[in-house]
Formats: sequence, structure tokens, C-alpha cells
Amino acid sequence: MTASTVQWFDDIEVGDRFESATAYRVTEEEIREFARRYDPHPGHIDPVTAQATVFGGLAASGWHTSAMTMKLFWESGFPVGHSVGADMDLQWPTPTRPGDELTLVLEITDKRESRSKPDRGVVTMQWGTRNQDGEWRQRCRCTVVMFKDPAKAGTPTTPAAPAVPATPATPAQPRRKPAPRG
Amino acid sequence: MTASTVQWFDDIEVGDRFESATAYRVTEEEIREFARRYDPHPGHIDPVTAQATVFGGLAASGWHTSAMTMKLFWESGFPVGHSVGADMDLQWPTPTRPGDELTLVLEITDKRESRSKPDRGVVTMQWGTRNQDGEWRQRCRCTVVMFKDPAKAGTPTTPAAPAVPATPATPAQPRRKPAPRG
Repeated sequence: MTASTVQWFDDIEVGDRFESATAYRVTEEEIREFARRYDPHPGHIDPVTAQATVFGGLAASGWHTSAMTMKLFWESGFPVGHSVGADMDLQWPTPTRPGDELTLVLEITDKRESRSKPDRGVVTMQWGTRNQDGEWRQRCRCTVVMFKDPAKAGTPTTPAAPAVPATPATPAQPRRKPAPRG
Repeated sequence: MTASTVQWFDDIEVGDRFESATAYRVTEEEIREFARRYDPHPGHIDPVTAQATVFGGLAASGWHTSAMTMKLFWESGFPVGHSVGADMDLQWPTPTRPGDELTLVLEITDKRESRSKPDRGVVTMQWGTRNQDGEWRQRCRCTVVMFKDPAKAGTPTTPAAPAVPATPATPAQPRRKPAPRG
């Protein structure tokens, strides 16, 4: 099964795994730029002063790590365009460093129908962002609302909030990998 | 008590409230810029296509809302420079829109000594980011590690990871407000 067939709640299965097709290369310049704008901690901005901070050297803002992870989602084959984040339990076990090459791995852990809206379901997943040495920079357990395939809907009613077109979510290099079972 | 006296774990009290001193004005341009870089959902990038998405119009990436909230933390008087995020339970109840003027309010709900490291403690808080109409754009319950005042430390040992200098965390307009008690 290729990622291009995974677009909707109907297509997702518990145990499915997705991985980013490419790595995100983290630069000192980008770390400092993001920090100056949103999180001006000296540990995120000044490589010299950062030595004396809790980070022990220049490190990305945790929110920057989250933003870069979101970019990796778009390259993982997971149908980002048909889902909306709902609730996240988020941690940054270690700080992201200049030179890191971040990749994302995520696994579907649960799915259920929406109790109130027939055009969607709720999917639970866990994901992790790690660098080239396997050090975890971010871990997350989250639930997302995922829309069902309108073409398979049994009723002629149009959802009040239709999902976005499928095309933008199609990754250049699908990387969906079935998880080992049993 | 002014915010300038709130620098360390020692200074924080359960029930303390902090509010951002200024509002963050959200522009269409910044929403699209952030999204192009990190979260290229059509609902975050194209005002026309966005109408047909689940967002029903242009909306900021949730991670962008988180980043802007981090900026508001720096203006709230909360001693960001002496704390490190540890674990977050994060939600985006409604999407952030162009024209929003975001403010942050946070309340300390618990504090305890670190079980393993005498130079720090663990603080639990909840915070919310809302717009000028009181609509909540982000809610979070989180724990942070907060460092103790080195000047009050009873031992001559130097912490392995010293906290950052206090000065960068000092807000321009302290807004710490004691919470109502009882």
C-alpha cells in the first residue's frame, strides 16, 4: 500500500507507521532567527552566552522543534490535509542542536468514530522526532480529528466543514510502512 | 510584589497569575509566512482555498499559535529564562485568525521540590491564549523545571547546568497579579 491511498479516516489502520521521507537539517542561523522572533532565550540566540545556560550550548526553542516536526509530517505520507490536531501530550526530552538532521516516525495507536459527527473520526497516534544519532528531540502522544472519504459517505448531506482537497497532502516520496503485527 | 522579584523557584507561589503586558497582533502575512515554512496546509496559506477547508477561512497553524504564545510568555513577567518546559498537554480550541490580538494568562497550580536535583523544582501551571473577544485559541496544562536562587543555595556546590542570567527575563512591563484567594 502506498501513501497516496491513505487519505481519509477510512484508510487508516491501527498499527500503521509513517516516516518522513527526508531529514530536516537544522542550522544555527534558523535556530537564532526563530528564537529572536518567538522565544528570545539566550540559550536559543547567542552561541557564547548559551554555554552558561541550562542548555549548555546553542539549542533550538522547543516550539521550533515542534514547527520543524510539522514540516516533516507533510513529507511522511500521513494525510495531514484531512486531519486537525485536537489534543497533544508533548515533551522535548533533549534540546535540538545546530547540525541535527531530524526525522519523524509516527504510529497509529487507536481509531474510533466521532460520537457526534458522522463525517469524521478520532485517531490517536504517538510520534517522535529524532536526530541522526537516534536522540529523541520531541515525543508526542496526540489525538487528531480525521475526515472520512466524502465519496464513500452514505448520505447526500454535505458536511458543514468539508475537508481540504486531497492533492496538497500527497507527499513526493511516500514512506508509509506497515507496522510489524503480533 | 512586582514581577522583577519573581525570578526563581523560591519566588513562585501556587495561585500566582501572570498576564502578557501587550497583545500580539496576528497578520495574514505572518500566518502565510509561517505556514509556507513549516505547515503548508491550504487553510494556512491561501485565503481563497481556505474557505473550503475545515478552517472555513485563513487560520494560523496551531504551532504558529504556540510560537506566538511563547513570545507573550516573555512579556508576562513569568521567569521564562529560569525555567525549562518539561511536559505539556496542549489544545487549540479555535483557530487563530488574521486580526486577532492575542494575550496570555497563566496561573501556577502546583510546585514541588525536585526529587533528584536540589538546585531546582517542578512547577505546574495552566495557561491560555485568547483574542480580543475572549475566544480561546490555545489552552495548555504543563509542568516546567524551574531553578532555585543560587544566592540562597545552602551548599557550595556548583550546579552542573547553571541557569541563565536573570536579566533577559525581566519584562518591560511587569504584570504579575496575585490570584484571588479563598
